[in-house]
Amino acid sequence: MGRPVIIRIIGTGLLGTSLGLALSPRHEIQLEDASPMTAALAQDLGAGTEVTDESAAPDLVIVATPPDVAADTVNRALTDFPDALVTDVASVKAIVLAEVGSGRERYVGSHPMAGRERSGAIAADGDLFIGRPWVVVPHETSRPDAVETVKRIAMEVGGFPIEMSAAAHDSAVARVSHVPQLMSSLVAATLVDAPPSSLDLAGQGLRDVTRIAGSDPKLWSTIIAGNPSSVADILREVRSRLDSLIDGVETMAEQNAYTGVASVAKVISDGNIGVSRIPGKHGGAPVRYATVYVLVPDKPGELGRLFTEAGEIGVNIEDLTLEHSAAQPVGRAAISVNPSRAKPLADGLEERGWTIASVEMEES
Amino acid sequence: MGRPVIIRIIGTGLLGTSLGLALSPRHEIQLEDASPMTAALAQDLGAGTEVTDESAAPDLVIVATPPDVAADTVNRALTDFPDALVTDVASVKAIVLAEVGSGRERYVGSHPMAGRERSGAIAADGDLFIGRPWVVVPHETSRPDAVETVKRIAMEVGGFPIEMSAAAHDSAVARVSHVPQLMSSLVAATLVDAPPSSLDLAGQGLRDVTRIAGSDPKLWSTIIAGNPSSVADILREVRSRLDSLIDGVETMAEQNAYTGVASVAKVISDGNIGVSRIPGKHGGAPVRYATVYVLVPDKPGELGRLFTEAGEIGVNIEDLTLEHSAAQPVGRAAISVNPSRAKPLADGLEERGWTIASVEMEES
Repeated sequence: MGRPVIIRIIGTGLLGTSLGLALSPRHEIQLEDASPMTAALAQDLGAGTEVTDESAAPDLVIVATPPDVAADTVNRALTDFPDALVTDVASVKAIVLAEVGSGRERYVGSHPMAGRERSGAIAADGDLFIGRPWVVVPHETSRPDAVETVKRIAMEVGGFPIEMSAAAHDSAVARVSHVPQLMSSLVAATLVDAPPSSLDLAGQGLRDVTRIAGSDPKLWSTIIAGNPSSVADILREVRSRLDSLIDGVETMAEQNAYTGVASVAKVISDGNIGVSRIPGKHGGAPVRYATVYVLVPDKPGELGRLFTEAGEIGVNIEDLTLEHSAAQPVGRAAISVNPSRAKPLADGLEERGWTIASVEMEES
Repeated sequence: MGRPVIIRIIGTGLLGTSLGLALSPRHEIQLEDASPMTAALAQDLGAGTEVTDESAAPDLVIVATPPDVAADTVNRALTDFPDALVTDVASVKAIVLAEVGSGRERYVGSHPMAGRERSGAIAADGDLFIGRPWVVVPHETSRPDAVETVKRIAMEVGGFPIEMSAAAHDSAVARVSHVPQLMSSLVAATLVDAPPSSLDLAGQGLRDVTRIAGSDPKLWSTIIAGNPSSVADILREVRSRLDSLIDGVETMAEQNAYTGVASVAKVISDGNIGVSRIPGKHGGAPVRYATVYVLVPDKPGELGRLFTEAGEIGVNIEDLTLEHSAAQPVGRAAISVNPSRAKPLADGLEERGWTIASVEMEES
C-alpha cells in the first residue's frame, strides 16, 4: 500500500467510518452500507464516496459490518472482486475464518483494538486507531501480500500490528475485553434495585468499574455469540474464585470473626498481581518505574531547583507529577525514574537538603 | 463549629492527614498516630501539630485509624476527653457503633466517601473531600449537637453531609463500593496466568474496570470483615446472575448458535439500567440530558454562529463537546440540553440551515 489504492469499506458504522476518515487523504475510499442513509452520513462526514454501479473494482475490501454478517460479507467480496484482497475488522476471528470459502488465500482477518462508548458513523474519529494494537490474523493459506497489506493499513492509520492466530486472538479478547465487559455489566446490574440513597454514595471506583456497562446489548450479544467457548472458560474461572470468596465472606458473617479473611485477601492480592501485568499505554512490555517522592516547599523557584539538581545528579526524569493543594505549605513531587536510578537520585537529593518522603518501586 | 476549636485527629494516614490539611487553616489541629514517624510526616506536610503531654484537651476527636481498631480508639477518646465530641471516619459503621460504650451520646459515626488509590499521609490532599458525600450516622442516643458538629466539619472541608442509619450505610457501601472492589479484583485476577501476548490487547475498558484492583489487600480485608453480611448478600446476587450467564454462554458454545443469547443480552441491558442510575458528580438525582449532534463545517466562525443561533432559538446549552479530527472537513458538536428543549433546538437549527446528525435522549 505504499501507493494510493482503491479501498472499499463495507459497513460505515463507527469503525468503517473512522477508517474512511483516516485513509481518505491518501487513498480512494468507496463507502457501502446496508443502510444508504448511513453510507450517506459517512460520506457527509468526509470518510469517502458512496459506491455506485459505476464504481471501479477495489484493490482492497475492508469489511466493517457487525460480526454476525462479517463472514458472508467477506465471501461476497471475495467473489465479486476476484483480484481484491479482503480483510474484516470483526472483534471475533475464528468463526469468521471458519466460514470463509473460495478465495480465502486473499483473505486475512484483522481486529483493530479501538472503540468508543458511542457507536455509529456519527461517533467516528479518524484518530481512533492511533497508538492502538491492531491484530492481524494470518491463516495456513493466506497470501503473504495480503498479510503485508493489512499490516500497512494498520500502520497508516497509526495502529501497530500484532500477528496472532485466530484461536489465540479469540482467547485473548475473551480475557481482556469480553469478560471484563460482562463483569462490568454484572456490577452495574446490582444497582437496578438499589435504594436511591445508596446510589448517592457512588464514588469514582464504581464509576470506573461500570463505565463500559453502558454498552449496546445487541452488539455485545453478537460478540459473545462469536466467542462463547473462550468466554465460558474464563467465566467459570471467575465463578470458582467467586465461590471461594463467598465462602470466606459467609464465614466472616456467621462467626463474626476474621476466619474467612484469607479468601478476601487472596482475591485482592491476586487482583494486584493481575492489574500490574497490564502493559503501558502503547501495548509494550509493562513499564517498571521507581517513584521518588520529594517534599517541595511552596516557594517560587523550588521546582526549578529540583529539576536542575536532579540533572546534576545525572538522573533522567521519566515523569513528574506535582501534587499540591491550597491548604498546604509544601507540595509533593512524584519523580518517576528507571528503578536503578532511584537510590542515586534519593541520596543525591538528600545530600542537597531535600526531604525524601518515600521511594516506591512499581512491580511489573 | 462556627468558631475555631481544638480538633484531635487520631490516625494520620490518607484520610486523617487530608482532614488535617483541610481543617488546619481554621482550627487548631492535634495529630496523633500509633507510629510517631507517620504523625511527624503529617506535621511536616502541614496537617497540624503532633500531640505532646502538654496538649490541651480537644473539643472534637476525629478517629481516622484502620476500621478494625476504630471502636477501641473511639472508646478511649470518649474516656480520655469527657467533654469532647467524637466521630470516626471508618468505612463500616454498624460494628463500630455496636462496640461504642460509655459516653456514646457524644459519639456520632461518619464516613467521608473520599479516597485515592494510594494510601498514607504522603498521598494526602486537603481537597480530597470537595464535592464528595459524607455520611453522618446518628444513633438512638446521639446528642443533636454531636450530629450538627460532624455535619459542619463535613461542609467545612467541602463535602456534603448525608444522614443514614448504620445499617443503611453498610448496605449501601456494600453495593456501591465493597462489591465493585471485589469484582474489579476478580477481573484482574483472571490476568495472573494470561499469556503476555493477550495483555498486549488490553484496552481502556479493561484498564477502567481494573483500576481499583491495585488496592491494598490488608485494608480491604479489614473493610470486608466489618461488613460481611451485606457483602455476602450482594455477592450471592452476583453469583446467581453469573450462573445464568454461564448457562447461556455454554449453550451458545455447545449448540454453536444464538440459543443462549438472551442471557447475555439480559446481563448487558440490566447493566445499562444500573449504570444509568448512578447519579451525577455531586450526588444529586441522575441527570437526564438530551444531546443534539450537529455537523459543523470546519470554517472560522461557524461555532460562534452555532452558539448565537442556539441562543436565538432560546435554548440553554448545558454542555457542548466538539469532536474533530484532522482528516475531516466537518466537526461534530454534541450539544446537551434539557430533554424538553431538544426538539425545538433541532428544528430551529435545521431551519437555519444546519445539518442535524442525530438527537439522542439519555435515559435515567
